[in-house]
Amino acid sequence: MQSWSALVLPALELVAIAAFALSGVIEATRKRLDAFGVCVVGFLTAFGGGTLRDVLLDRRPFFWVEHQYVLVGVLLLCIVAISIMRRRHLQQTERMIQWPDAVGLGLFCATGVHLAWTLGMPWLVAVMMGVITASFGGVLRDLICNEIPALFKDHRPYALCAVAGGLAYALVQASPLPDWMAIGACVIVTTGLRLLTLWRDWRLPQWQGE
Amino acid sequence: MQSWSALVLPALELVAIAAFALSGVIEATRKRLDAFGVCVVGFLTAFGGGTLRDVLLDRRPFFWVEHQYVLVGVLLLCIVAISIMRRRHLQQTERMIQWPDAVGLGLFCATGVHLAWTLGMPWLVAVMMGVITASFGGVLRDLICNEIPALFKDHRPYALCAVAGGLAYALVQASPLPDWMAIGACVIVTTGLRLLTLWRDWRLPQWQGE
Amino acid sequence: MQSWSALVLPALELVAIAAFALSGVIEATRKRLDAFGVCVVGFLTAFGGGTLRDVLLDRRPFFWVEHQYVLVGVLLLCIVAISIMRRRHLQQTERMIQWPDAVGLGLFCATGVHLAWTLGMPWLVAVMMGVITASFGGVLRDLICNEIPALFKDHRPYALCAVAGGLAYALVQASPLPDWMAIGACVIVTTGLRLLTLWRDWRLPQWQGE
Repeated sequence: MQSWSALVLPALELVAIAAFALSGVIEATRKRLDAFGVCVVGFLTAFGGGTLRDVLLDRRPFFWVEHQYVLVGVLLLCIVAISIMRRRHLQQTERMIQWPDAVGLGLFCATGVHLAWTLGMPWLVAVMMGVITASFGGVLRDLICNEIPALFKDHRPYALCAVAGGLAYALVQASPLPDWMAIGACVIVTTGLRLLTLWRDWRLPQWQGE
Repeated sequence: MQSWSALVLPALELVAIAAFALSGVIEATRKRLDAFGVCVVGFLTAFGGGTLRDVLLDRRPFFWVEHQYVLVGVLLLCIVAISIMRRRHLQQTERMIQWPDAVGLGLFCATGVHLAWTLGMPWLVAVMMGVITASFGGVLRDLICNEIPALFKDHRPYALCAVAGGLAYALVQASPLPDWMAIGACVIVTTGLRLLTLWRDWRLPQWQGE
Repeated sequence: MQSWSALVLPALELVAIAAFALSGVIEATRKRLDAFGVCVVGFLTAFGGGTLRDVLLDRRPFFWVEHQYVLVGVLLLCIVAISIMRRRHLQQTERMIQWPDAVGLGLFCATGVHLAWTLGMPWLVAVMMGVITASFGGVLRDLICNEIPALFKDHRPYALCAVAGGLAYALVQASPLPDWMAIGACVIVTTGLRLLTLWRDWRLPQWQGE
């Protein structure tokens, strides 16, 4: 189990970071930001969630300080995307990254919840930290691009999948089962729910208060 | 005095937090955010100011980490508000929360100033921390809702009442009077000025530079 | 060398802070913020970059906590600007502060890179901290004023000059040359490039992906 996760998990995480960064690049390109702006938004979307979590938990060093090569990788990815991506590729790319994005949602949420739990945070705060890690990058992306964050407005369950995954984590942790099963439950519930949501095109109920 | 404040103050504080959260729910509802977005904005409006103050002062744990039940309470309040509030109730609720909001302005400002003062901050920084604690939640609310913060634009004295209260605190602290009188002066000046402002409908001078 | 820099550098830094604050006042005035809002935006533009850098590096006290007189100075500057500046002065002032702003870009970038380098940050992170110190105040200004940050959209090299300066710093530090030469190289490259950019009216390539 250990050796499997030591190989596969980091690889999945890199794929997820790339998917997050690309979603930033796509949004920034739509808004006609310049090359520097596109790179910043790509970087913020990829690392913003984890960075806010670490600031709130007063934890250092940040992921991207410890693993500078990932920082270089995201910058290269942004530069390559700017160079080769044309306007007609945007929607296509957006569809392509839905799967790795769902995987990232699960992995990032699990990282956040587990970290906060290990630091002794109460369960609700731990779940919040998971949700923040998984989704705050996208919020930052939309704030910079001068939009109300899609996370709060598009009536599609995204953060709610992470909430469910975080609760699954807390439930398993409350049982005598080992840590890695809680982490696994969080990833499976979050990513599974997100994929189900995409497949069935579920929506949150519209606000109908008149 | 001690026993009085130990009973009444926390109760007032809970009322103020509820008023702040409701002002977030109202704004988010106006902007037609979805249920998740409304809860996040409600939470940010209630806790954003104190959280930023604690990040700036490098102070942990946050209020909502230490008192998880308040977090649960605010979430329940948001969910109830989403369920029962109709569009026609918004303006009505907005008028109803003006009083508890003014009380919150005073209490939060006093908490912020007193905390920074206790940590040895210079007087101007302490006043700033009071103002941030009392008003930054509303700024975050407006930023998320993609508006220029009303605090900076509506030409009504809101933060300025907190500035006056903070200065009153610093003045009393400079005298040999005890701590609790400084805190009381801050709350009375801030909340009193705010209520006076609402009653007389005072405005800041319009910008007329041609 | 020491005595020269001990006299001239702080003076230049104060001029740069004033230029940054004024650029905030101008933008806030354009957006018709009220007097309180103009002061907040002026303050955020002047100190936002250094404050974010210190939060990320977990460094206290902030510059404006340690040097409260600068805080008072910026507040006075904002109040004076609000009182005497008329709409027709805005563009004129904007042109006037281009030079001190370029000096500020170089000085702030050098401060940020050097600080991060001294704390043992990897080179890319140090460069990022320089860029954040020099340019994030303007990003905050635009976010508050509900605009996509000009830094990311106006296709003019501003942050890129700071990137070049940061790289110059890292290159000199990698050599056996002393610290102050690295700092000097950073300031000269950043400010020089920025002035060259303004003089030749250079632009980044437009996004032309169809």
